[in-house]
Amino acid sequence: MELATIRTAGGTCAAVRSADRWLPLGAPHLSALLAAGDWRTTAEAALAGTSPGAGVAGDAEGVPVGEAELALPLPAPAKVICCGLNYADHITEMGRDLPEHPTLFAKFADTLTGPTDEIAVPPAAQGELDWEAELAVVVGAELRSAGEEEARAGIAGYMLANDISVRDWQKRTLQWLQGKAWDATTPLGPVLVTADSIDPEAGIGITCEVNGDRRQNGNTKTLVFSAAALVAYVSQFTVLRPGDVILTGTPGGVGMGMQPPQYLSHGDTVVVEAEGLGRLANTIRFSTAH
Amino acid sequence: MELATIRTAGGTCAAVRSADRWLPLGAPHLSALLAAGDWRTTAEAALAGTSPGAGVAGDAEGVPVGEAELALPLPAPAKVICCGLNYADHITEMGRDLPEHPTLFAKFADTLTGPTDEIAVPPAAQGELDWEAELAVVVGAELRSAGEEEARAGIAGYMLANDISVRDWQKRTLQWLQGKAWDATTPLGPVLVTADSIDPEAGIGITCEVNGDRRQNGNTKTLVFSAAALVAYVSQFTVLRPGDVILTGTPGGVGMGMQPPQYLSHGDTVVVEAEGLGRLANTIRFSTAH
Repeated sequence: MELATIRTAGGTCAAVRSADRWLPLGAPHLSALLAAGDWRTTAEAALAGTSPGAGVAGDAEGVPVGEAELALPLPAPAKVICCGLNYADHITEMGRDLPEHPTLFAKFADTLTGPTDEIAVPPAAQGELDWEAELAVVVGAELRSAGEEEARAGIAGYMLANDISVRDWQKRTLQWLQGKAWDATTPLGPVLVTADSIDPEAGIGITCEVNGDRRQNGNTKTLVFSAAALVAYVSQFTVLRPGDVILTGTPGGVGMGMQPPQYLSHGDTVVVEAEGLGRLANTIRFSTAH
Repeated sequence: MELATIRTAGGTCAAVRSADRWLPLGAPHLSALLAAGDWRTTAEAALAGTSPGAGVAGDAEGVPVGEAELALPLPAPAKVICCGLNYADHITEMGRDLPEHPTLFAKFADTLTGPTDEIAVPPAAQGELDWEAELAVVVGAELRSAGEEEARAGIAGYMLANDISVRDWQKRTLQWLQGKAWDATTPLGPVLVTADSIDPEAGIGITCEVNGDRRQNGNTKTLVFSAAALVAYVSQFTVLRPGDVILTGTPGGVGMGMQPPQYLSHGDTVVVEAEGLGRLANTIRFSTAH
């Protein structure tokens, strides 16, 4: 099953994909749909044509996939928690030991932006702007101190993220937040592919291209901490709720690691892609405004 | 002016202090009051007896200060951003140099708890539980890329926080989040003292006592980064809105810095106090439940 937040004349709405159409689900976006608790039932009813809105002409027909504009699927997560240093191939190629515990930091809902949105970068962040293709996990149940099996069952599904990072700010102090939480710099989406349709532990190839040049090429089967392991770990210290997002880290090939380092410039287009999860394509715009 | 969230029969309500009474303000808590935008006008109207609720008997009279139970004043901040290493003496005891930039990390709304609430600590967090008395800054206006003067004018006021930290989890990786964001472990309050009533740059003495033994004794005039400087700095990368909270760091005297280190145990009471800001008094309860 694929869920999305699509743009409408009046704003946005949550939708489920039925073959070549997006069917509306009576919520303004996926954050609201997931928070309501019965998102799976709602989506299945829409697919079966038995939802309350199904009789309304136009509404039930939905929007053709080719015409739909996909917005930021989850505009209002209460928690966006990110894992660093999580791809074994990258860690071992750097000569480091595999970590015993996941390295975690936070972003805000304000940090997120849509799958094809332009990324406006103020002057202070234009120096060392880097890409990080990632698998994003979307929580689908309330989880407290969950074991790995409970955590796995509590995952709503997966999407892509580009953890765009401002390296000079990230390196200013020991804590990465100020390099990781610039407003509207982390593309997320394009859709939520539910966990029954895709399995990152079996392996999902994730790539990142800048202006068509391949920069990253990783596979989720080499994650040190799997999606379920991360969800379980985080739930030891803080409750996770439907709509919360966990970013699972990036494979090798970021700009900071190149010789010499390469960073994003005005006009660059970054594409993050994965089989079964679609693509994020975002163009960088250096703004003069702060 | 002093604002608080007080417990009522039906839940909580935002209130303003008028001499020996808390007057209700028609919002369930200070997060809602501040988000509504006209919090100052609302509070001033209540104090002047001209608020819409003033004609309602009982309501207008409010609750005697001695009878009021103070709840977590801000239960729903979208952003809780914390500064580490901001008092020269604490920086020294942690073995670090004076910083050029503030070290920032995040907590969640779920991390917060009330000014006299018991702190339930699950088994995994009972090993190295530490105290950190702090001045908390409450944002009162929407701020983007603010200069220091605009930031200062956008501060609603101040309260106290105890940035209770799980040191072994904090030290597991480079990023502190997992030691700083255990649910319901950061007491905040007891009241919001508005910025026209108190000035941390002029100096506010802040102390922490564990079971009556003085552990910390700092003064906000020795902050490396002032409240206004921190607000201005954060607003460079993410918008701040009314009700967001910034913790300004802790002075020397934490348990981890003692020889040998000392940590909190079941039954300990931690008191954070400051002239003009009141006190937080929280008892530690080691729970068997996860």
